Amino acid sequence: MNIGIIGSGNMGSGLGRIWAKKGHQVIFSYSRSKDKLENLARAVPNARAGTPAEAVASSEIILISVRWADIKDALKAAGPMEGKIVIDCTNPLKEDLSGLAIGHTTSAAEEIARMVPGARVVKAFNTVFAEVYHSNSRLYGSRRPTMFYCGDDSGAKSVVSKLISDVGFEPMDSGPLKSARYLEPLAMLMIQLGYAQGMGTNIAMSLIRR
Amino acid sequence: MNIGIIGSGNMGSGLGRIWAKKGHQVIFSYSRSKDKLENLARAVPNARAGTPAEAVASSEIILISVRWADIKDALKAAGPMEGKIVIDCTNPLKEDLSGLAIGHTTSAAEEIARMVPGARVVKAFNTVFAEVYHSNSRLYGSRRPTMFYCGDDSGAKSVVSKLISDVGFEPMDSGPLKSARYLEPLAMLMIQLGYAQGMGTNIAMSLIRR
Repeated sequence: MNIGIIGSGNMGSGLGRIWAKKGHQVIFSYSRSKDKLENLARAVPNARAGTPAEAVASSEIILISVRWADIKDALKAAGPMEGKIVIDCTNPLKEDLSGLAIGHTTSAAEEIARMVPGARVVKAFNTVFAEVYHSNSRLYGSRRPTMFYCGDDSGAKSVVSKLISDVGFEPMDSGPLKSARYLEPLAMLMIQLGYAQGMGTNIAMSLIRR
Repeated sequence: MNIGIIGSGNMGSGLGRIWAKKGHQVIFSYSRSKDKLENLARAVPNARAGTPAEAVASSEIILISVRWADIKDALKAAGPMEGKIVIDCTNPLKEDLSGLAIGHTTSAAEEIARMVPGARVVKAFNTVFAEVYHSNSRLYGSRRPTMFYCGDDSGAKSVVSKLISDVGFEPMDSGPLKSARYLEPLAMLMIQLGYAQGMGTNIAMSLIRR
């Protein structure tokens, strides 16, 4: 598939690299440094650098992986995304990282869906640290982390579920896009555990059943 | 230890029974049916039935396990809890279970802490289904679920951590009481997965690391 990455920082570069290695065609865009973007694209097979608008034009799937503060600017640069599958892996962190800027009655995913009318938005990939995407494997011993995803378009969710498997996680359908109101606080719990509680960034959630 | 249970429904009866079996002295209180309360106490060793005020008077640890709609009535019946360790396992569900009634800028745990001045409130036990407490074991194959807990009193958290181990979970310190803003949405995610997504109630979270 053709995947456009809007926001080629830690998260976007990590996920894009994994998908490119799996044979997907990746366009990296929206980085603070044009040199960094070019170097990233050169270092990854099946990848090139472009503008956000180019990333959207040549991709069926768009990953939004920008800082919450940059979301409006990034979506403006990207332009319309009608009919595209848009994966939102953002977390609407406060500038000082002390908590979520929005929540409970809305979520970043729902706000983004409003900003890109007609796009098929799926929330995913927001509950593990970027370091997990940059390591060689997603395996924890013999266990795979669970990746929770949600959205209102079942076809889009089915595609994203496969992209989650490509990354090496166990996909877990968590219902409508509104469930992002639970997945974004889950990311904050991970940030609390990883940083404040000193667990580090190589932690992940695994849903167990019996 | 002496543990007073305020709210002896599915959650309270399940947890109280486990602690009583572990040798703690348990007082069950606050049930819609007095007969049910007496029968429960008779069926559990080291347990008796009482009023909420009796449960508080004779216990160092109080479990609040009432429906969110009953919280004010239950705390009024219980009376002051200054200096007590208060475990909040509630989730502030909307009456129609469609979501959380409060969140983001507050949490059930923080609201309860305001209602019981001087109490040492710890949030815990809210992220698994009552069925897990009523089964014979907390083991999932060879794995134990992770139980996230949070609070502002480190001494109280240390006691609750031991009570979590008694139940058969891996205790996970999740920071200040404010982290209940993440643990209550996590419970909603479990409810979404268990009911709407059809995973059932025998699911649990396990934090994995490498």
